[in-house]
Amino acid sequence: MADETGGSYVEQGKSFDRDMNYIPDRIVREPVEGSDPPQWPVEPGRYRLVAAKACPWANRAIIVRQLLGLEDVISLGLAGPTHDQRSWTFDLDEGDVDPVLGIERLQQAYFERYPDYPRGITVPAIVDVPTGQVVTNDFPWITHDLFFEWTEHHRADAPDLWPAEVRDEMEEVMQRVFTEVNNGVYRCGFAGTQEAYDEAYDRLWTAMDWLEDRLADRRYLMGSTITEADIRLFTTLARFDAVYHGHFKCNRQKLTELPHLWGYARDLFQQPGFGENTDFAQIKAHYYVVHTDVNPSGIVPQGPDESVWLTPHDRERLG
Amino acid sequence: MADETGGSYVEQGKSFDRDMNYIPDRIVREPVEGSDPPQWPVEPGRYRLVAAKACPWANRAIIVRQLLGLEDVISLGLAGPTHDQRSWTFDLDEGDVDPVLGIERLQQAYFERYPDYPRGITVPAIVDVPTGQVVTNDFPWITHDLFFEWTEHHRADAPDLWPAEVRDEMEEVMQRVFTEVNNGVYRCGFAGTQEAYDEAYDRLWTAMDWLEDRLADRRYLMGSTITEADIRLFTTLARFDAVYHGHFKCNRQKLTELPHLWGYARDLFQQPGFGENTDFAQIKAHYYVVHTDVNPSGIVPQGPDESVWLTPHDRERLG
Repeated sequence: MADETGGSYVEQGKSFDRDMNYIPDRIVREPVEGSDPPQWPVEPGRYRLVAAKACPWANRAIIVRQLLGLEDVISLGLAGPTHDQRSWTFDLDEGDVDPVLGIERLQQAYFERYPDYPRGITVPAIVDVPTGQVVTNDFPWITHDLFFEWTEHHRADAPDLWPAEVRDEMEEVMQRVFTEVNNGVYRCGFAGTQEAYDEAYDRLWTAMDWLEDRLADRRYLMGSTITEADIRLFTTLARFDAVYHGHFKCNRQKLTELPHLWGYARDLFQQPGFGENTDFAQIKAHYYVVHTDVNPSGIVPQGPDESVWLTPHDRERLG
Repeated sequence: MADETGGSYVEQGKSFDRDMNYIPDRIVREPVEGSDPPQWPVEPGRYRLVAAKACPWANRAIIVRQLLGLEDVISLGLAGPTHDQRSWTFDLDEGDVDPVLGIERLQQAYFERYPDYPRGITVPAIVDVPTGQVVTNDFPWITHDLFFEWTEHHRADAPDLWPAEVRDEMEEVMQRVFTEVNNGVYRCGFAGTQEAYDEAYDRLWTAMDWLEDRLADRRYLMGSTITEADIRLFTTLARFDAVYHGHFKCNRQKLTELPHLWGYARDLFQQPGFGENTDFAQIKAHYYVVHTDVNPSGIVPQGPDESVWLTPHDRERLG
């Protein structure tokens, strides 16, 4: 898995299956003692979001934190784009050490919490700075709680990323985007048989056609304002032509050849919080270097041309 | 090399270097005894062109043979798209045997000529049917001689693929297309270091930009009629989005994103001899299955969408 450390990505003869077991703790405004999973208190300055610009799941949290204006309340640590089998590492920092946590490998914060932590070391992870322990790496809940639990620390004009009036439909859209697109590209790329790949490809493109159609007359997935659903789709679209098209064989078309999705992706990219947190060099380095069983040479492609992301998108007309 | 059999394609730490040592015999209308390289006589029905639709070098000869109307004079044997380390094989034929040569592996015709033949078993190859020996596999000379030496057997309205009035410039164009594009895509795909790849990518796209510019106001490479230069470029362009873009990391743009080159490629594809001899399934199967060191899973992508090749190109306006 892209956000996980591990030895092998393609399992010969198998379909790709994401391990969805995460540390399920929550950070909430009114924690209940003895709850299961455990609840930690919202507390400005106490936690550090550890992410990596390469990783689509972590990139969501980076964008949400900025859109909500939580930069001064929750600090951000960034691991480098490539990791070894053990852990994401802080090799972008001076001395290869996270300046707040004082660790070289994210694994250390997982072990601080659970000395025998048996699963992959993933980003995003929220770390309790005083104890150095990982609180949670349960990525959908992380962005959910940044919105619903940290409300009093949001900037004054923070967007409503979870509008109550469309919440039910938004959950359905996010679920389909998750299983068919966010995860669907990995299902193509890590397929262990031709049959598994063919099935994954058909599933992915069925969903891409649905999205292309949905975005024909909606500026954003849920209408005229940006929601959490858009952030979750954006971080996959931003990687589509740079990585998923070639490296994961999601190549019916490039994103640039799907007019509505391409206009939509550029519309987001050109707004605060999106393009500025998208680092194509780190994205490409991550996938092409880490997945040695997909790309044994480790050579990172120079393409595609990134300048197209700044071309006009004409989506304002959709309101 | 794509048209060659061999164990490994990417040489770690090295740039790609094509072995250009071929069996240099010629088939000519007036052979000279004792010439070096040996000369064989033009003789209808005597020779068999062995090709593979997967291979760009062999595809040239298939197209030229048809454009010149030599189908009844030189027969055509077709090897399947995938080969093992030893040889291209006739696994598309009934009983896996070429019906004219009676062999299973093209290697047998090479060994019939030279029992210790030390180099790769390549297509295209012209085989002398009576003896079962390979006459030549020197691909640029094969298409040259189909035009200049088999003239009296051409169909009446055969095109002038080598117009004398542009011959000098055409040789220059073909040389640049060969080193920078035909071979340039392999230099990207088989680069053994990041530096070798980066250099190969820059060389390739310098040439692609030159071609895009050249074709802005010329319908074909040398003007208003199809020449050998177009055939040599076409077989690379036909493979560009299907294989070279992703598999060989030639991904600054897709061919479909380069307006003049894309119009030009479709113009040719939609004319007799070109599209009908382009088999995307065989092309993809060849590269993605044979190059196990580039694509260890052996999974063949479903994309790209091939229907775009039949869309209007509006190149007639260029005369």
